[in-house]
Amino acid sequence: MNNDPRQRLDRYVDQYSARAAGMLASEIRALFAVAARPEVVSLAGGMPYITALPLDAVGELAGQLVADRGSVALQYGSGQGDAGLREGICEVMALEGIRAHPDEVVVTVGSQQALDLMTRIFIDPGDVVLAEAPSYVGALSTFASYQANVVHVPMDDDGIIPEALAETITRLTTAGQRVKFLYSVPTFQNPAAVTLTPGRRARVLEICQRAGLLLIEDNPYGLLGFDSAPQRALRADATDSVVYLGSFSKTIAPGLRVGWALAPHGIRDKLVLAAESAVLCHSSLAQLMVREYLATQPWQEQIKLFCELYAERRDTMLAALESSMPPGCRWTRPAGGFYVWLKLPEGLDAKAMLPRAISARVAYVPGTGFYADGAGREYMRLSYCYPEPSRIREGIRRLAGVIEAEAELRATFGALPPNGST
Amino acid sequence: MNNDPRQRLDRYVDQYSARAAGMLASEIRALFAVAARPEVVSLAGGMPYITALPLDAVGELAGQLVADRGSVALQYGSGQGDAGLREGICEVMALEGIRAHPDEVVVTVGSQQALDLMTRIFIDPGDVVLAEAPSYVGALSTFASYQANVVHVPMDDDGIIPEALAETITRLTTAGQRVKFLYSVPTFQNPAAVTLTPGRRARVLEICQRAGLLLIEDNPYGLLGFDSAPQRALRADATDSVVYLGSFSKTIAPGLRVGWALAPHGIRDKLVLAAESAVLCHSSLAQLMVREYLATQPWQEQIKLFCELYAERRDTMLAALESSMPPGCRWTRPAGGFYVWLKLPEGLDAKAMLPRAISARVAYVPGTGFYADGAGREYMRLSYCYPEPSRIREGIRRLAGVIEAEAELRATFGALPPNGST
Repeated sequence: MNNDPRQRLDRYVDQYSARAAGMLASEIRALFAVAARPEVVSLAGGMPYITALPLDAVGELAGQLVADRGSVALQYGSGQGDAGLREGICEVMALEGIRAHPDEVVVTVGSQQALDLMTRIFIDPGDVVLAEAPSYVGALSTFASYQANVVHVPMDDDGIIPEALAETITRLTTAGQRVKFLYSVPTFQNPAAVTLTPGRRARVLEICQRAGLLLIEDNPYGLLGFDSAPQRALRADATDSVVYLGSFSKTIAPGLRVGWALAPHGIRDKLVLAAESAVLCHSSLAQLMVREYLATQPWQEQIKLFCELYAERRDTMLAALESSMPPGCRWTRPAGGFYVWLKLPEGLDAKAMLPRAISARVAYVPGTGFYADGAGREYMRLSYCYPEPSRIREGIRRLAGVIEAEAELRATFGALPPNGST
Repeated sequence: MNNDPRQRLDRYVDQYSARAAGMLASEIRALFAVAARPEVVSLAGGMPYITALPLDAVGELAGQLVADRGSVALQYGSGQGDAGLREGICEVMALEGIRAHPDEVVVTVGSQQALDLMTRIFIDPGDVVLAEAPSYVGALSTFASYQANVVHVPMDDDGIIPEALAETITRLTTAGQRVKFLYSVPTFQNPAAVTLTPGRRARVLEICQRAGLLLIEDNPYGLLGFDSAPQRALRADATDSVVYLGSFSKTIAPGLRVGWALAPHGIRDKLVLAAESAVLCHSSLAQLMVREYLATQPWQEQIKLFCELYAERRDTMLAALESSMPPGCRWTRPAGGFYVWLKLPEGLDAKAMLPRAISARVAYVPGTGFYADGAGREYMRLSYCYPEPSRIREGIRRLAGVIEAEAELRATFGALPPNGST
């Protein structure tokens, strides 16, 4: 290898920060470029079905905002976000039992930015973040980029297991580790589609409060339940020990990038400073669009419409799985949200299988992305939010064929070589 | 003081990251809340005069984008940003002599996010960032939030002084410091309104290249010159050793939050990963609005119109300063951009004087914000971009009165007590 830095492919390779070493391109990134081709049925992405929005009405609202109030909508805004929007956000959260003041809310560039800012203000390299096993891939990547040490806590069908949480906290703090927060998606979890039961919510809060541990409740799917009224948020019963993250990406549209954090005042202050240093302020236009949308459009009816549409697609996917998956496959039956979490028959590897699936024109996200510790090879996440029902059926049919072929190979030749694994 | 963490004002005060300690609310923050009152003439903010935009046309464009292409404009996009917009950005940069490929561009949430991401991928705590003295306050706050050690390099009327730059690099590297990049606003600098001369551009590039030092060229004002064709960008003559940051905040509108970084491929890759971890992706709608605006609106004529408007306001401010400032004041005569940098008579302190100025219903930014080392008390930044000419005249008249009163006090009583200083 040439050691003259000016001759290397990336002459700055020795100059990046230690944290940049944790920013790695996913191994499956290149595959997803292929998976974006129209002939591939993608069950991978978590894109909401925007076409169901009243686009004419939203367009008119956007146009009028610029034409009539452009000198505000196109100008810089405050780091904390538009005050009127923050009032609207409090009304949205009230549906989940949360009583909050707009002053406690910080508007962020999607709830992803809220996650980034929370990690920025709390995590020193090596600090521990607790997260469900599995957990949201985007959160894990943010935690890694701040050199956090993610420790998973097991879940079952009722959500995170309180006894396991308590035991993990005790074990880590006894070992002298600095545990900074528990990151949880308690409702219609991404990717496992599990919802924390009411009884467990009380237990989890109690455990966190006793340990003095902050809980980040990330709740992008809370209003997208198919069967019943919205769950009561953890934040509804704990004002000081929960930071609640919300998003309009799934209830309105992700292209506006409007999310928020609801946080106790001390944390709120730090979040605003961190947001200003990161982006100065959010887009005034995007914020005013959401504010006007909430004020003038039947947003609750629209969410109901989204729920009906996603429920139908969930039903389609479950029926297709039921009728075509080979023996040994197991999967969750989501009561809301976007995802089915599928476990492969013994010995199969979702990550190794992905290239063959894409050759068969179907894509999914292998389970490994949702674990910080290399686990998850036997799992895959299947999204039913975006494809039309007929495409879902076709995608599952193709996927079943791939899994079946893999299972047969394995039955014939025994354990497969670890294709592409490390 | 109560030591039970649950009883403290902020129970998380012991839990924040080390970097959060560098995120401090500016001491003048509270004052600016007062300065926002309509009776105060604010010469503080750097807000462009958005009202001069063709708001009807922009509104129509926004409305049509959502109505006709909402399923894309309101959906998630890529971490690198819209490909068509990146092509448009290359055309904009061509005005400054830059030849670039859209693949080298990353779209960011204002150029502030580009600064944040560059700092994130390069700076470990204690690493040195070189910056002009004075330098952009928002950059200094970002550098501080990553625990960088900012070392200033002196400027004169021709921009940063090459000999001082070379000497500083040698001194720091000899002392074993890790110098990561030079941050510069070479054209119509914020706050000093100085432009680096062509001869010095070549010298600065040569010094950086010899030292293997990356140069961040932050150029939000480059197209806002009053007298001549755009300056040739430093990046135009150095493809591999300059990361160029651009912004539509001053040439179109800041409320869209569309900026960019143009970077060599290795750095570009890291920036995309860092952007995804920070915000997933930028707003598709905002990006498509800029793309359509560039494609369908006479954007170069609009910039010319902005320039004429700002030139008139600059003339107004310079004339008002000339006719009303007491002896001993000196100020720059900007050839572009938004700001005049004023030096007070010997012994006066712009920061200590600010409360009295606001009582007299005029606001400015004290010079101390633009230095990482506590210098700058004798300076203030005056913006002429936003207020109407009559307000500028009135603001300078009020300011002259305040300075005059301070100077008289000082002449009568000698050195003033360091009011509010540390």
